[in-house]
Amino acid sequence: MKVTLNRNAFLAELATVQRAISSKTTIPILTGVKIVLSDEGLALTGSNADISIETFLPVTDEKAEMHIETTGAIVLQARFFNEIIRKLPENHLSLEVLSNNQVSITSGKAAFTVNGLDAESYPHLPVIDEKNQLKLPVRVLNKLINETTFAVSMHESRPILTGVHFVLNSSELLAVATDSHRLSQRVIPVEQAIEDFNIVIPGKSLLELSKSFKDEEELVEISIMENQVLFKTANMYFYSRLLEGNYPDTNRLIPTSFNTEIEFQVPELLSAIDRASLLSHEGRNNIVKLSISPDSVILYGNSPEIGNVEEALSYKNVQGEALDISFNPDYMKAALKAFGEGEIVVKFISAIRPFTLEPTDTETAFVQLITPVRTN
Amino acid sequence: MKVTLNRNAFLAELATVQRAISSKTTIPILTGVKIVLSDEGLALTGSNADISIETFLPVTDEKAEMHIETTGAIVLQARFFNEIIRKLPENHLSLEVLSNNQVSITSGKAAFTVNGLDAESYPHLPVIDEKNQLKLPVRVLNKLINETTFAVSMHESRPILTGVHFVLNSSELLAVATDSHRLSQRVIPVEQAIEDFNIVIPGKSLLELSKSFKDEEELVEISIMENQVLFKTANMYFYSRLLEGNYPDTNRLIPTSFNTEIEFQVPELLSAIDRASLLSHEGRNNIVKLSISPDSVILYGNSPEIGNVEEALSYKNVQGEALDISFNPDYMKAALKAFGEGEIVVKFISAIRPFTLEPTDTETAFVQLITPVRTN
Repeated sequence: MKVTLNRNAFLAELATVQRAISSKTTIPILTGVKIVLSDEGLALTGSNADISIETFLPVTDEKAEMHIETTGAIVLQARFFNEIIRKLPENHLSLEVLSNNQVSITSGKAAFTVNGLDAESYPHLPVIDEKNQLKLPVRVLNKLINETTFAVSMHESRPILTGVHFVLNSSELLAVATDSHRLSQRVIPVEQAIEDFNIVIPGKSLLELSKSFKDEEELVEISIMENQVLFKTANMYFYSRLLEGNYPDTNRLIPTSFNTEIEFQVPELLSAIDRASLLSHEGRNNIVKLSISPDSVILYGNSPEIGNVEEALSYKNVQGEALDISFNPDYMKAALKAFGEGEIVVKFISAIRPFTLEPTDTETAFVQLITPVRTN
Repeated sequence: MKVTLNRNAFLAELATVQRAISSKTTIPILTGVKIVLSDEGLALTGSNADISIETFLPVTDEKAEMHIETTGAIVLQARFFNEIIRKLPENHLSLEVLSNNQVSITSGKAAFTVNGLDAESYPHLPVIDEKNQLKLPVRVLNKLINETTFAVSMHESRPILTGVHFVLNSSELLAVATDSHRLSQRVIPVEQAIEDFNIVIPGKSLLELSKSFKDEEELVEISIMENQVLFKTANMYFYSRLLEGNYPDTNRLIPTSFNTEIEFQVPELLSAIDRASLLSHEGRNNIVKLSISPDSVILYGNSPEIGNVEEALSYKNVQGEALDISFNPDYMKAALKAFGEGEIVVKFISAIRPFTLEPTDTETAFVQLITPVRTN
């Protein structure tokens, strides 16, 4: 294998596969990046127990300025390799596999010789049947990930809740996540005639996936096998394992009739909650109190040691019964961040029943649920 | 005490005194910021065992938009107070001391009430005789700090070496730091007729001082007492304790005759050393080797596990005997960074004697010393 190419184009690919490479793995070859040079271009692969990423830099990509002398393959220790490439003196570099899996990396007057591993011993990625593919713009999938993944559980006591539940049902795709204290559910229309599916993807995989995309306007093709999902774009294959087990039936958790409703601007409510949480974070229970009456909506935060805060909230509209309700402000902050800049309606039943948050724009099928904290 | 003022102007002062406030102190009142409001303006004080900072925001400062209703003083828990001010909804805020050392902080519709401490119980700062003051532009002092402080020792085994030695001697100020493996010494001319001094200032204090200055063109007045030094600018008093004990005689360490000399461009040498250190950092000894001959200067780095690197260095001029010398690249990197962008001459005696680095511009009295590593 011998090739010269543009350093920055190569670094961008390395950065992507590096998301899947952990230095903590117990399988030594997985600390490496697999490099395969064919007549078509350069494929890089990184992998860990949860995800695998394969990128392809085509020889036809002008930015890559790639000149292939001989094809071949090698595995190089990823962290060092990346550091070395990053610090090379010139904008171009040459890679050449010498004997005994040694690799020469040269740029300007600097000549590195590093020890590699035989590419044949790198594990094979799963083969996924690409017949039943859901196609979505990257932008749409990224939004779905941002709107749900924050609500997955961080605890392994119920592993299935560490993932996002995706259900494709004839004409719509539902994504829902819950850690049993709060829930976020988004439904988007789908206009493709493909087989229904019902899978749970680890939240961590989705966050890495979202960061790995380079072009929001590209299409991503989603293919599912028994225990794997593949997200495929023009130059990237992103594999994730699926979580096994039955996801709880979350649909019955979402209430449909309410006694009190208020409309808020998201950014203003978010900054008030943020202020109140400064004090609640120091209290033992981390709760803030919302006191709703027909002519005022007041937020309270308190810490016995530091002090307290009280703020009359700006709201657009309040309807229904007066209510005092306490909740964890961190769940509220995360929920509000997922809505972005718009307006929401918050709907309550009582001080001890979960309340919902939805965009006032009723065309967006997006609902969040937060369980209040009993204070008496 | 009651005052309204501009939030950003206040935050800037808070950020400065916060450099002296540690949440880890064993003296509870020192986790607080002392606020003293007089008819002239607002003084803030923060303090720890090593440094104390006092800033003053004058009522005449237009950016402060300060309106004083009643004067007074209070101590508030610094970390929270800063967070609260930072997250207030409006650009203005009011502070009012209520009964029992409680303080009301209001801005827009948000009203905080926080618990303070009696300002009378805050420790007094040292009184320093301001008669014998050295005056320097902040820019000059900052440069001196950057050129020396990196070379202080990080180990408490010889506490005196954790400071920078400053010696004022009739018409010049010498600053020198060494950790016994490397040394950095800078001398600047001084045109003031003041008493000579000979002090050691903790390196950590100097780094905080350097970050606390806001205006490089201001003058700083330096006053010294038995165990304290005060750096005073228009609106800041910065106190540091001095280190006790005798600083070693470093002058005799700096050699004056050499056998080999090379001139380098600093940025180019620095990036080559950086590349070689990628590999040396993985070896047991963290050393790189420089091989000097009349027609080439080659840098080698090596790690038995990862590989090796070899680079023919660009240099301007080489004179004297051929030499192979090994050294810790991290000392070299730190030394080169202190020189900035210019040209230096590196002078060697032999493979086992310390070598020096100096600007080729001979008007700058700046010399660094690095002890090589014996490899046989």
